[in-house]
Amino acid sequence: MSYTAQQFAERAEAIAKAGRKLGALGLTPATSSNFSMRLDADHLAITISGRDKGALTADDIMVVDRAGKAVGTSARPSAETLLHTQIYARFPEANAVLHTHSRTQTVASRLYAREGVIRFEGYELQKAIAGHSTHESQLDLPVFPNTQHMPELVEKVDTWIDAGKPLYGYLIDGHGIYTWGRDMAETERHIEAFEFLLNCELDLRRLRQ
Amino acid sequence: MSYTAQQFAERAEAIAKAGRKLGALGLTPATSSNFSMRLDADHLAITISGRDKGALTADDIMVVDRAGKAVGTSARPSAETLLHTQIYARFPEANAVLHTHSRTQTVASRLYAREGVIRFEGYELQKAIAGHSTHESQLDLPVFPNTQHMPELVEKVDTWIDAGKPLYGYLIDGHGIYTWGRDMAETERHIEAFEFLLNCELDLRRLRQ
Amino acid sequence: MSYTAQQFAERAEAIAKAGRKLGALGLTPATSSNFSMRLDADHLAITISGRDKGALTADDIMVVDRAGKAVGTSARPSAETLLHTQIYARFPEANAVLHTHSRTQTVASRLYAREGVIRFEGYELQKAIAGHSTHESQLDLPVFPNTQHMPELVEKVDTWIDAGKPLYGYLIDGHGIYTWGRDMAETERHIEAFEFLLNCELDLRRLRQ
Amino acid sequence: MSYTAQQFAERAEAIAKAGRKLGALGLTPATSSNFSMRLDADHLAITISGRDKGALTADDIMVVDRAGKAVGTSARPSAETLLHTQIYARFPEANAVLHTHSRTQTVASRLYAREGVIRFEGYELQKAIAGHSTHESQLDLPVFPNTQHMPELVEKVDTWIDAGKPLYGYLIDGHGIYTWGRDMAETERHIEAFEFLLNCELDLRRLRQ
Repeated sequence: MSYTAQQFAERAEAIAKAGRKLGALGLTPATSSNFSMRLDADHLAITISGRDKGALTADDIMVVDRAGKAVGTSARPSAETLLHTQIYARFPEANAVLHTHSRTQTVASRLYAREGVIRFEGYELQKAIAGHSTHESQLDLPVFPNTQHMPELVEKVDTWIDAGKPLYGYLIDGHGIYTWGRDMAETERHIEAFEFLLNCELDLRRLRQ
Repeated sequence: MSYTAQQFAERAEAIAKAGRKLGALGLTPATSSNFSMRLDADHLAITISGRDKGALTADDIMVVDRAGKAVGTSARPSAETLLHTQIYARFPEANAVLHTHSRTQTVASRLYAREGVIRFEGYELQKAIAGHSTHESQLDLPVFPNTQHMPELVEKVDTWIDAGKPLYGYLIDGHGIYTWGRDMAETERHIEAFEFLLNCELDLRRLRQ
Repeated sequence: MSYTAQQFAERAEAIAKAGRKLGALGLTPATSSNFSMRLDADHLAITISGRDKGALTADDIMVVDRAGKAVGTSARPSAETLLHTQIYARFPEANAVLHTHSRTQTVASRLYAREGVIRFEGYELQKAIAGHSTHESQLDLPVFPNTQHMPELVEKVDTWIDAGKPLYGYLIDGHGIYTWGRDMAETERHIEAFEFLLNCELDLRRLRQ
Repeated sequence: MSYTAQQFAERAEAIAKAGRKLGALGLTPATSSNFSMRLDADHLAITISGRDKGALTADDIMVVDRAGKAVGTSARPSAETLLHTQIYARFPEANAVLHTHSRTQTVASRLYAREGVIRFEGYELQKAIAGHSTHESQLDLPVFPNTQHMPELVEKVDTWIDAGKPLYGYLIDGHGIYTWGRDMAETERHIEAFEFLLNCELDLRRLRQ
């Protein structure tokens, strides 16, 4: 292992702090959602399954390896750990992953499930997503079908990336969002921006009926 | 009596804490709502009628017997105590009951009163209800007509259970929700999940018009 | 004067506390709204004009007589003081008055201005309004046209009362609500209940389109 | 320079306090928004680019001159600094400027972008905008096209003012609002009032469909 106890403690604290903030914003209903940070090339720190995300502490965080197996603990990691390990494997610059279940994410994913993607255009806040410097860009957020069998989801995400399409986050139908960033601050900015953009799209859809 | 003063104090505190949390979330407007926990086979701890649920303390909790009669106090229990005692009688595994009056619960109950039931399908958050392990399950929440005469409501609930239909909670038209669980944490998870699912259904109804 | 300094201090504190609570709930945008309590047959304690209602203290409260004239201070009372004095004159049991400007009150008043009244039926929460013991009652909330000339509004209210119609509160078009009660707790319950009922009516109107 | 260190410190603190309040209200998502105060005829205090507005402190505030150039620091001012300096140049009575990005401002700006203006009539809260004493006035809020090139926006604003039309604030399409006032308290009242009025307009549009 190339990470220190101090590094784990710092990331566990950063995850817990982000979780409490997202919980207070109502993005993690009923013990749902999970969060992680990269520790080294082979390990990540991730939330233990079933904990109340609004009251998260460093004790709710554990270590898993790149295959998603628990390291040095008998605690059970989130059922969706493979989606986290995939992101760290496919995006070398990613160091934090946030997955939440907000009402807006859930409703938008169901409305756009058939089209399979939500396209944002003309919003100044698109600039909050790394690599975007103007509201004149196009920002696509894919919507993948939900499943309890994680390898199916992993394959959908791989297919999207392998097709060379940009990916900054994705929705799962009836479920929630995954997004990531270079550090926890950028990842929190991404989740806040996607939540905002989804809310605007739903409002405009209602108002333009 | 087979419960101790210590057990009553612990449950009164757990009820008060849950009540303050639900109050802060806006689920208990204008002194409405009531909450209880099982003490032993013959007694439950329940909120005294008319107290401000957002500022609830252990002093706002009293004991009633299985017939809903006050025990060791002249305080008046909630007018709906019989709905609580029925739940403990019909569901031996239930140890906590929460009844709230949110705007979403009220509006959804009026919209679905004629159909008599709301069916949830395809939501990952259905897994937050005990016994559900996939979004592919169906989760039915019945809507019973409102009445000021509790025995009528008790009968409606009995009829549903006696027909062998699963029951995890129910709405009363123009009024609110009842749900329960093995302990207070599970019951809070249930109320949070039902509130979330009802909000999503109303949003989708608005957006698909 | 038949009230003591102690009585004024107590009521000023009760008004300030209610104001801060209503401010935190978003019911008093942009320094709007005003609140009062009866001191004796000839005097009331009322908010000074233009203060930030979300940060209200006892120093923001002054005394006026039954004609709405400032007593013992050069501070300016709310422009709408005459609506407060009218309520105390017409409803001898009233000891507190709350007037707020929420978005829901504003929007509902504009939608129902032509009909001149909003009727609530079938809501359990109607029982939160004094004198109502069942959801089967009818609760009418009149909507009066807005004006900057208070005597016109006073006359509209008098006409309604003199016609023998029950009155527990009223809306002013594009403006907000007035409601009252025997004490501050009942008045707060009334404003919370009317806000809730108006929100439900708007939701149902949207969902039944 | 004709301002003192003490004056800068006071204004930096006033800006930080206003920013934290607006952040808590959800008006500044994902590090967006910027705020300023006039220091003297040639300088203003303004937020440093990219800081989290909900956790703003005096250390996040810097000085720029009337051309928008940083003074006494290597920090980078907001990309939109020229819109602030324009307001202080064109409105001698203005001493504070607030620019936020709320969901409501974003959605309203997109809906009314083609018409180029939102007109408010019949709202009591129009009186919260300086110079308005009755709900019978008309209050126009222009909507300008968004651009990443600030001089284009500066020109649109100049054209509006030079046409002799009253201006109390403006929206930028898909982006947010600018408003100003004699001091920070008046400016906060203006932003709160515009946010409220925009919310009411969107609600009425939905409800009158």
